[in-house]
Order: sequence, then C-alpha cells, then structure tokens
Amino acid sequence: MTCVPGTTPYPWPWHGELDPERLALLLVSCYADDRPPPGDLAAVVRAAGGLVAGVRVRAPRPAAGESAASWIDMPVSAPGWADVPVSAPSWADVLVSVPGWDGFYAGPLDALLRRHGRDLLLLAGCCLETGVHSTLRSANDRGYECLLVADATRAARADLRAGAVSTIEMSGGIFGAVGASAAVAAALTGKE
Amino acid sequence: MTCVPGTTPYPWPWHGELDPERLALLLVSCYADDRPPPGDLAAVVRAAGGLVAGVRVRAPRPAAGESAASWIDMPVSAPGWADVPVSAPSWADVLVSVPGWDGFYAGPLDALLRRHGRDLLLLAGCCLETGVHSTLRSANDRGYECLLVADATRAARADLRAGAVSTIEMSGGIFGAVGASAAVAAALTGKE
Amino acid sequence: MTCVPGTTPYPWPWHGELDPERLALLLVSCYADDRPPPGDLAAVVRAAGGLVAGVRVRAPRPAAGESAASWIDMPVSAPGWADVPVSAPSWADVLVSVPGWDGFYAGPLDALLRRHGRDLLLLAGCCLETGVHSTLRSANDRGYECLLVADATRAARADLRAGAVSTIEMSGGIFGAVGASAAVAAALTGKE
Amino acid sequence: MTCVPGTTPYPWPWHGELDPERLALLLVSCYADDRPPPGDLAAVVRAAGGLVAGVRVRAPRPAAGESAASWIDMPVSAPGWADVPVSAPSWADVLVSVPGWDGFYAGPLDALLRRHGRDLLLLAGCCLETGVHSTLRSANDRGYECLLVADATRAARADLRAGAVSTIEMSGGIFGAVGASAAVAAALTGKE
Repeated sequence: MTCVPGTTPYPWPWHGELDPERLALLLVSCYADDRPPPGDLAAVVRAAGGLVAGVRVRAPRPAAGESAASWIDMPVSAPGWADVPVSAPSWADVLVSVPGWDGFYAGPLDALLRRHGRDLLLLAGCCLETGVHSTLRSANDRGYECLLVADATRAARADLRAGAVSTIEMSGGIFGAVGASAAVAAALTGKE
Repeated sequence: MTCVPGTTPYPWPWHGELDPERLALLLVSCYADDRPPPGDLAAVVRAAGGLVAGVRVRAPRPAAGESAASWIDMPVSAPGWADVPVSAPSWADVLVSVPGWDGFYAGPLDALLRRHGRDLLLLAGCCLETGVHSTLRSANDRGYECLLVADATRAARADLRAGAVSTIEMSGGIFGAVGASAAVAAALTGKE
Repeated sequence: MTCVPGTTPYPWPWHGELDPERLALLLVSCYADDRPPPGDLAAVVRAAGGLVAGVRVRAPRPAAGESAASWIDMPVSAPGWADVPVSAPSWADVLVSVPGWDGFYAGPLDALLRRHGRDLLLLAGCCLETGVHSTLRSANDRGYECLLVADATRAARADLRAGAVSTIEMSGGIFGAVGASAAVAAALTGKE
Repeated sequence: MTCVPGTTPYPWPWHGELDPERLALLLVSCYADDRPPPGDLAAVVRAAGGLVAGVRVRAPRPAAGESAASWIDMPVSAPGWADVPVSAPSWADVLVSVPGWDGFYAGPLDALLRRHGRDLLLLAGCCLETGVHSTLRSANDRGYECLLVADATRAARADLRAGAVSTIEMSGGIFGAVGASAAVAAALTGKE
C-alpha cells in the first residue's frame, strides 16, 4: 500500500496502489504565458516515471482588451483555436489544447491517457474554479482517480478557493481527494 | 429584444432572442425519487413551447446504505445504470439517464438538444454543486447559452451555495448567467 | 499465447492474450425484433466469462411504412429514442440503445466497457455494412482490439458483404481481424 | 430550391437549401504529404463562402518502414500525434488533426463546425474506405447532411471503391448522397 500522505477526505489513491507508471500530472493552464505552477512538481512526477501533460483550456483565449464575444466571432482564417502551436513546453511530455474549460472536451486527452495507461491523475494549474475544476469533474466521470494538488493551483478569486476545494471533498470525496505538492513528492521519492 | 428580467451578471440570453422554440429546461435530479424542483417551472416552460428534459445523473445511484464503491463494483447482471427505466415522468418531455455527474457525458443529451434545435438552456435541480454545476459547465463548453435558475436548485451543503453561484457569474458570466424562476415565468408569459 | 484459430489477416488478438475477463461480445442489432444472431455465440462467450452486450443502434427505428425523415421529425412527446425500454434481453448482460449507427456515439458503451475492463471485442449482428461496421470502426479508434465474427453477421445486401469484410482486413488488418464463430467457441472452450 | 445536380440516390441536400454559409468541405487526407485532392474543389467552395477544413486522421501516421504497432508504442516524448503542427495549409481555412480514422473522434471538428454554423458537408480525400468513410459515417450520426464527392476521393484498393460508394447510397441514402465535383462547382457558381 502506497498513498500520498495527508490527503483528505480519504487516503489517495483509494486502492493504495500509487504506481508511477499509471500516474499523470495534468497542468491546466489559463495563464497568458502558459507557465507551469510554481515549484518542481512536474520534475518530480517525471523523474518518478509519471506523465506530465500541459492542458491548455479555452485555447486560444481572447487577447488583452478583447471580449469573449470577439473570440467566439473570430474569423476562421484568423489564427484560431484550431491553429495554436501544440509543441510541448520543456516542463511537459505533451501539450493538449482544447476549446472548452474541460480539458477532456473536443480533444485527445482521454485517448492519450488511455493509450499510455494512466488512470491516476494529479491536477494542478490555474484557475482552480474554471479549467482545473471542469477538467477534474470530467476526469472523475470517466473513471480516473483524481487528486487535486491544492497548493499548486491558483484561484481566480481568493474568496472562492475554499468552496472549490470543499466541493471536491464533500460526501466522502465526491470528485476525488485533495493533497499537497510536498506530500506528492514525498510519496514519489520515498522520502518524507 | 426579450430577456429574462433581473439576471446577473448580464441580461440573458446575451443576444436578447428568448425564443421558446430554442429553449430547453434541464432538470438535473439527484433525488432518490427523481422529483422535480418545487413550483411550476416545468409547466411554464412547456406551455410556452420549451422542451423539458429530466436529466438523471450518476444513474443509478447506490441504494441507501451502499457505498459508492459498491456501485462501481456492481455486477453487470444486476439492475444497473444501463438498465434503468427511461420513460419520462409526467413533468418532462424526455428523460436522459447517464453514468456521470455531467448530464452530457456518455449519453444522448447533446444529440437530442441539437435535433430539436434547442440552444438556450435553463438549468435547475439538485444538487447545485454536483450534477447541476457539471452539466452547466459542459453545456457552456458546447456553446449552449445557459441560465441557472438559482431558486429552483437545491444545494448539498448550504455553505457552498454562494460560491457555486458566484463561480458561474464571475468574469462577466464565465459559465452563463443566474436568474429566478419567477422572472423566467414572467418573460415566457409576458406578464410581470 | 492463446488466439482464435484461423483469423485473418493476423492471429487475433495481436498480443495472444485471449483473456475472457477482458472479452466482450457486441451484438449489434438492426432487426425489428432485436433477435440475436443465429447459434450459441452469446452463450459460449458468457459461459467463458465474457460480457455480452446488445447494442441497439439507430434506436428507435422508424416503424414500418415510415420514412427516416418522419423519424427525425418525431415529436419529443412521442415514444422516442430516449424512451426506449433498455432492459437487457435474456441473451445479453446489458443492452445499450443509441441514436446513431455507431454504437459508441451518444451513449454509455465506452464507459461501460472500461468500467468492466473489457478491451477485446467480438462484433456480430446486423447489418454488417451499417451498424456493425460503424461500431467496429469506432471501437478501433478508441483502442479496442476487434474481431469481426463474420458468419454471425447479416449483410443488408449480399453484393456488399465481401467488400465490407475486405475493408477490415486490408493493410494488415487496418480495423482489426476477421474470424468464425466456431473458432471463437473452440478458443474459449479449449476444444477444437 | 437549390441542389447539386445529378446526385444519387436523392437530390442533395435533401431540403434543397444549398446555402454556402452552411457549407463546409472536409478534405480527409491520408497522404504522407497531406496534399489536397486534385482540381480546384477547395477554391470553388471557399469562393462561394463555404468553409474548407483539412482533416488529418490517424495523425501522425507511422513513418515509412514502421509498423502500426511501433506507432502505438511511440514514446510520449517523441514527436507524436499530440505534437503535430496544426497550421492550416494554403488550401484550407483550418486543419484538424486527430488520432483515429474518424475525423470527429477526440478532436475539435464537431465544435468547430457548430461554431461556424456549418451543417452541410462535402467529403473528399483519401482514402475512401478508411478516413473518408469513417468521417462521413460519424458526421451522419451527428445529424450533418453529407455528400461524398466521389471523384475527389482516392481508394486504397480499386476493387473496394464501388462497394464503399454503394454502402452510402443504399436504402435511399443511408449515410448521405454521392455526387461529382463538377456538379458541386456548377451549383455553387450558378453555371452549368
């Protein structure tokens, strides 16, 4: 039995089989620069044998000063969400860009994770209430065992953070469990 | 221009074309008895020409005293989520039963709404933080224009209601707008 | 190594691991009466530990004398494809009813097979060129290893049977392999 | 009423409303060089106001000398199907790359067509029996009205062409209709 220490509301993963070969870290990013979350979570996961996937949701986003409506109406011939560069950044194995807030909608994320045998998912990134939450909910529906790495997420509004975390934890972990990046690192490196 | 009065953070629908022929009410239900939300919202929508769909998420649910794990492990030969009766209750035109919290996942909801030309969605039911929120997020990704009918929802935990509503409204209505059932009725009947 | 004897163009399954616990038989049916294909294929698969799923495509179909257009225009309040009874017939563990020719579209088939750990699929039923072929193509895209049980299929038009089979076999088995029901039975019962 | 002249087995589109603003041409390509089909079909469609989408299925394909198995096992860090360049070629408005033979599976094609209001689809490319047929079948399930532009397709095997075309036309056009590129051009330019 290997679990990430200190996760709530239950020891994660539920079956106690924290096999790095079944593990993937989804870094959901809403940053303009697609930068990864702070710290070395991605490096730790890769070193242990986990897969690191950048998940660019609502891509491309409206440029500064544009409304969402202008994005919706964007001419097809303009650089659009079907035309975004998809080469993976240095901190990821793959990068998936999708049009919605849910990283699984209208893209290859589910096919990619299945092909690589990854059914244990760590979720982090920004923003917690939007892309991270939608992607985690969708992953849970698809049968993935999910852990929100809470300190590796950024909330769009500070007052909504606690509710977003509680919604995952309620009813015994209705959408998965919640943990900390240091605990993930400890579990994967065997050090405490 | 016809909008539902008093919606936040923007007048809904955004284009001002509240055409009942394009309207559907999704009653997401997590009740054991699949009862509709209180009031006559469904009747008002149907009388105006809207479509009323019952959306039974996470169907079937574990019986009282069963854990979610027992549901997951349910033998295929037992009465299971692929075997639930799907006849519509009296208050709905159709009933869709799906295995996840997102009413659009692994079921015919999107196909059904497209076939009937419904792109304006009213969402209500229970529980707000789980099935209603997942279904609303998914609908928004698919391009539906969504209104949460807040007083026709029930929250699993009272302390999470405000955050769940704010998450929809933030950033100018990132997942849609929020309104009241009386205002929907007023807009559809032409009375205030 | 266990394979079904005599499959073309390659020994199926490709990895030689014919584990009944990973096996499912999809009986795609376009019959008015949803009868299974002739013979005892379903019984053999179930006795060995395989899962048998009835897959009712394009459900419900137009009644005799109705055009497809009338089906498309069917009022929602009429008994419709979202309202079909979904109790499994005696020869199947589960029955999935979907609106398209592809048994995986807009329904729970993929979720159900994943939940039960089935990634080796036998496909049979009627009609070969329509529902069986669409479902097999879709299964192949999703990473399932597929065997068409050719003698347990019925073609809509006899002159199209050979082409439909060759299309699966071409390029080294581009959509899977093709075999016979007696060979499947032999492999599963250990008798030749 | 405007239809493409000479289509079989019925005048296409069935409703007689050949509105270029609702039209898209899907050029499904299995060529190593992703070249478009011969002729100026794409240019004619764009000039009339139609949308032209390149649909790269099974992308990336195994390189020459590689087996499909080597592709399946391709390390994630290698240039992979999630990493393919997705800038549109000069003859298309957008380019969609997907992992399966069905251009709608695990990608943004459906979302893109809906966003741009395109429900009339012309299908062409290579190979007829594989990517073109899978994409056309999937489009039909989703409610798109489809026309195979037969002379703008290439078959993988000449002996399978007739059967692939007949399968679309049978039962009164079970998956759509079949026509010629010159007739499409005539209908769109108003010249015969």
